[in-house]
Amino acid sequence: MATKLSVNPDRLLPSEPGLREIARELYQSVKDLPIISPHGHVPPQWFAENPNFKNPTHLLLTPDHYINRLLHAYGVDLADLGVAQPDFTDDQARNAFRIFCSHWKIYRGTPMKFWFESELADVFGIDLVPSEETSDEIYDRIDALLKTDEYRPRELFDRFRIEFIATTDDPCDDLAYHQAVAADADWQRAVVPTFRPDRYLEPLKPTWNADVDRLAEVSGVDTGTYKGYIAAMENRRAFFKENGAISTDHSHADAQAEKLDPIEAERLYAAARAGTISVEDAIRLRRDFVFEQARMASEDGLVMTIHPAVARNHHEPTFAKFGADVGTDYPIHVEFVNALKPMLNAFGTNPNFQLVVFTMDEAVFSRELGPMASFYPSVYVGAPWWFIDTPDAVMRYRRAVTESCGFGKTSGMIDDTRALLSIPARHDMARRVDSAYLAALVGDHRLTMDEALDTAYDLVVTNPKKAFRVK
Amino acid sequence: MATKLSVNPDRLLPSEPGLREIARELYQSVKDLPIISPHGHVPPQWFAENPNFKNPTHLLLTPDHYINRLLHAYGVDLADLGVAQPDFTDDQARNAFRIFCSHWKIYRGTPMKFWFESELADVFGIDLVPSEETSDEIYDRIDALLKTDEYRPRELFDRFRIEFIATTDDPCDDLAYHQAVAADADWQRAVVPTFRPDRYLEPLKPTWNADVDRLAEVSGVDTGTYKGYIAAMENRRAFFKENGAISTDHSHADAQAEKLDPIEAERLYAAARAGTISVEDAIRLRRDFVFEQARMASEDGLVMTIHPAVARNHHEPTFAKFGADVGTDYPIHVEFVNALKPMLNAFGTNPNFQLVVFTMDEAVFSRELGPMASFYPSVYVGAPWWFIDTPDAVMRYRRAVTESCGFGKTSGMIDDTRALLSIPARHDMARRVDSAYLAALVGDHRLTMDEALDTAYDLVVTNPKKAFRVK
Amino acid sequence: MATKLSVNPDRLLPSEPGLREIARELYQSVKDLPIISPHGHVPPQWFAENPNFKNPTHLLLTPDHYINRLLHAYGVDLADLGVAQPDFTDDQARNAFRIFCSHWKIYRGTPMKFWFESELADVFGIDLVPSEETSDEIYDRIDALLKTDEYRPRELFDRFRIEFIATTDDPCDDLAYHQAVAADADWQRAVVPTFRPDRYLEPLKPTWNADVDRLAEVSGVDTGTYKGYIAAMENRRAFFKENGAISTDHSHADAQAEKLDPIEAERLYAAARAGTISVEDAIRLRRDFVFEQARMASEDGLVMTIHPAVARNHHEPTFAKFGADVGTDYPIHVEFVNALKPMLNAFGTNPNFQLVVFTMDEAVFSRELGPMASFYPSVYVGAPWWFIDTPDAVMRYRRAVTESCGFGKTSGMIDDTRALLSIPARHDMARRVDSAYLAALVGDHRLTMDEALDTAYDLVVTNPKKAFRVK
Repeated sequence: MATKLSVNPDRLLPSEPGLREIARELYQSVKDLPIISPHGHVPPQWFAENPNFKNPTHLLLTPDHYINRLLHAYGVDLADLGVAQPDFTDDQARNAFRIFCSHWKIYRGTPMKFWFESELADVFGIDLVPSEETSDEIYDRIDALLKTDEYRPRELFDRFRIEFIATTDDPCDDLAYHQAVAADADWQRAVVPTFRPDRYLEPLKPTWNADVDRLAEVSGVDTGTYKGYIAAMENRRAFFKENGAISTDHSHADAQAEKLDPIEAERLYAAARAGTISVEDAIRLRRDFVFEQARMASEDGLVMTIHPAVARNHHEPTFAKFGADVGTDYPIHVEFVNALKPMLNAFGTNPNFQLVVFTMDEAVFSRELGPMASFYPSVYVGAPWWFIDTPDAVMRYRRAVTESCGFGKTSGMIDDTRALLSIPARHDMARRVDSAYLAALVGDHRLTMDEALDTAYDLVVTNPKKAFRVK
Repeated sequence: MATKLSVNPDRLLPSEPGLREIARELYQSVKDLPIISPHGHVPPQWFAENPNFKNPTHLLLTPDHYINRLLHAYGVDLADLGVAQPDFTDDQARNAFRIFCSHWKIYRGTPMKFWFESELADVFGIDLVPSEETSDEIYDRIDALLKTDEYRPRELFDRFRIEFIATTDDPCDDLAYHQAVAADADWQRAVVPTFRPDRYLEPLKPTWNADVDRLAEVSGVDTGTYKGYIAAMENRRAFFKENGAISTDHSHADAQAEKLDPIEAERLYAAARAGTISVEDAIRLRRDFVFEQARMASEDGLVMTIHPAVARNHHEPTFAKFGADVGTDYPIHVEFVNALKPMLNAFGTNPNFQLVVFTMDEAVFSRELGPMASFYPSVYVGAPWWFIDTPDAVMRYRRAVTESCGFGKTSGMIDDTRALLSIPARHDMARRVDSAYLAALVGDHRLTMDEALDTAYDLVVTNPKKAFRVK
Repeated sequence: MATKLSVNPDRLLPSEPGLREIARELYQSVKDLPIISPHGHVPPQWFAENPNFKNPTHLLLTPDHYINRLLHAYGVDLADLGVAQPDFTDDQARNAFRIFCSHWKIYRGTPMKFWFESELADVFGIDLVPSEETSDEIYDRIDALLKTDEYRPRELFDRFRIEFIATTDDPCDDLAYHQAVAADADWQRAVVPTFRPDRYLEPLKPTWNADVDRLAEVSGVDTGTYKGYIAAMENRRAFFKENGAISTDHSHADAQAEKLDPIEAERLYAAARAGTISVEDAIRLRRDFVFEQARMASEDGLVMTIHPAVARNHHEPTFAKFGADVGTDYPIHVEFVNALKPMLNAFGTNPNFQLVVFTMDEAVFSRELGPMASFYPSVYVGAPWWFIDTPDAVMRYRRAVTESCGFGKTSGMIDDTRALLSIPARHDMARRVDSAYLAALVGDHRLTMDEALDTAYDLVVTNPKKAFRVK
């Protein structure tokens, strides 16, 4: 096995020489465009405080459930990777990195390989293939770079040509980090929050009552009644909007949203607050809450994004030991056409309302989302996300939705990540795959080269700005 | 952006030079074969009366929900396209065409672009790319041609080499237009009706009772009892068959068909007639109605086609304002294996019975339809239809079903359209994609060129004739 | 149509010259590796007694439901193919073969064509295209070869380079044939049983009570109580393991497995034994039975394989006349994430437990199985199987699961067949398609050639051994 890393400039472009030539031209036209990242999970504190990162493991392995979950699948204990280990030592970190490098082979064929190789080569200038033998050298070289000013969050932000980035935040968050960035005259960059109220919309969540109490406290609006709860939500949405937010983000068991009779809603809300609500009623109430979020969106103009149908914390012993977001969440079948009917009947043609729908159930792309986005002006089909933010799945997505709703009703690339260093690689992957897709359309004369070049630009710039109302 | 339209002779053929050579030979062998269109929606009046078409918008935009729905998705009001506007003026028509041409970019990657470009180039001899600037010139040139004898329905029928076309008709239709064509010694062409009884099979439809009354009137058979209803249906099917019909067409919420106990059926029928039937019973009765249609098919030999699982008129405000078939119908998940079991247990191996199953839920192609068609002699897998009558989806369909049921259990191309002028382009698209698929099988030595040529012919001629019993 | 059979050495490899070159090198590196077949249906008696096969029809057509079902779909009576005809004469057999050869065209595009052509060319050295004209000659040449020593099961086993083969067996089987092979010092080969207890886990099956009585008899453990039933199962699993078994195989209506309260389980078991259990309770009891099999697997280390969601004996008249396994079983929608949660919460990270999940519902590959296998060390994604053990579906499978769980969590090729003579062709097909898939990854620089070569070897050798714990 070679030890010198090969990061070919044509990677992910079609291998057929004619198509490759076309794809290269398309890719060249977009590869250096700025990054617009309207949905993701990078901590805003990084940009407010611009700290140096602790070490390679702490930055690249421990918090990355893509990397971790596959190591776990091949027998590695999450604890050995630092997951939920507050006192993880430097030696343990170095050892974790060695575990990762020795398992390098398991990432073959996955996007994690593409991302990590891109990070090594493009971010760190390292040309070694990860392995047990190269692990320490890679670790040390990254570690040394992380201690320099050039590898701090703000410097990377600029080096990566990020033009706009959204974080994901709790409705009760004071957005102090976003405000600190906004107030820093020396570093005027677009780092905006996203309103993510899931926990306040799930009456069965054990923390719900306390959360709703806190909502009252933070908003200064009494949440003792449903009317109050709604007003408090509106208050916090307004606060987020003032602080630059462009969208709200929602993930529940299904995509259903349905208005309850107001009196019934008050009754269910009171039962929820009293802790006496039944499971069925809690679901009805949650669907009403989601409907209300759509209603608010149609008024305040924040784009609504939904990504339902994930069975979270599937392996309960892992959740108990390591917490959430450690790789044991799985997509399930989802239905959108009937589920979204009440919401779209109410707001679907409201010019102020905009809905981006994400899914990991690929069956709905050609069956439900493409067709709905091909009629409803408000509906955008979100880019493949999480498990399917991968070269082949992105290609399938383009092939599945473009034929019904065209390019302009797709969201543009969404990196959805906390892994700041992978952001350029993720956007680069999307640009390469989209170039390959467009090249195929040029190759069989569905598009002229002019049309493809124009579309390639739209996918990187116009679409995310339009779908997310980036100013 | 270029203004000269490029309609490459190799469009949709594989771009790899070796495969393209193979695909070209296959395509050349079938491209000029006559068109067999065993299911569609062209008004029979056109062929009976052979009128000139009114203007480009009235012919090409207003009635085409493929074109309309995408404009709507990008913010255009359907009224501005003439939908449900009986007094649409010539100026409005010209303006609608301008809206369409200015939005030309939104069709990139969709089959609408392929169809419309083919129509422009091949039907009208126009080589301008649609745009705001070219709109008037295109409009005027088409308009002038539409005023000539050569662009009337009968002349186009012959120019398009249509050998057989079926329309879609109400069971109570007197089929006067079909009879007029049949009686015209100067223009002996196969324009036949299709029996589409959906509205008579849905006891919950508000119009059901009146429809069933009319059925009695037209058939001369009293529909006061279930027996009478059945006899009236048989009467109308016979009338359609006498007038050339080869098939019946059915679209309900699901694919379920199940025989009720006759006494129970009479009871439910009486309740339905009395307007007192429950929702559950109405569904049971409908499934019995569908079962009866299958039973009749096994006796009169009319081919049964089904295409269940479409959520129709999803956006109710649009339905209220513009009526049905304006782009707000969406496919939903469908189940065939259990649903079709009673019907196929009763008639599945009856040599007189033939069932063509259409779907827009691509997941069932390899999971359910291919496998069932690979055993039941009566079952044919319908070509991708509506939202998935598109190059990539047709390719996926071939790849999904051929490996289980072979080529001979697929229906052949079904254009399913009212847009007469798009019929050659639609069949041409199918022939190109099938040639590309076959070329791939030749390219990796799954088929010899002889086998592929023979199969290409079958897909265009043998399959539709066999699946639909075209004489 | 040519009469000389073309079996191109590059079949199923990519047609693009660059990729073909890469794929050839990959395929060459694995094409002659031994066959590991950890799950299949070859009768062990063949290897114990090594008989000559009766005639071509009896060996190649009558028992092969892939071949039969397609002939049936094109109008052939199963009886004419010898299905369920104990007194099928030599003339009838020759005639059946002629029916098959005259219908050769219907297999175009199916894997049956690939397999049969490979068998003709590689196993029998025959280069005639099957047809009505060539049928007798092909029949006679195969028949003559079958009468020679070289075409007996043991000789074919060695000629095919089979290193390991598992059969599928009833828990009450005495495994005499396996023991006979094991005891034969002259022919020491790995022919092992697989524990397939389905019928003992379905309390509603009419034969269940008698089966459970027989279980008691064979195991010597009283099955009067649930505890006894469990002990008897454990006894038989141990017996199978002693006789070389490496896995147990399970196919039920769904993938659900859930532990009942032990007292409740005893109650339901008693009701089942008394024949008074309700349908709902029988399903609950079956899910508990399956859970218990998983628990046993976590103790005895036998790999558990599941392949739920097949609607068996769909056409009841055919089942009544011809029995099971004659082509009228169809896949249905399946759900794994919620269904497997109790089992995986109990045993999913138990290093002794291993689960291989097979499906024919392709939608779950990227949505459910790939993601679950990318976290749970115990979970392996089974190769496409039955209707989807086909070139295009295998390619889709690789593209759907590799990006989430990598290569190492896939099962390796499973031929799942009784058709001994097709085993080399089936494994060859898998090696070709995997080479084509890997070539694509090399072609667009996702893998280096070194990595691809190493992976190609793993897919043929390492993966099946690891997934099935082949020693």
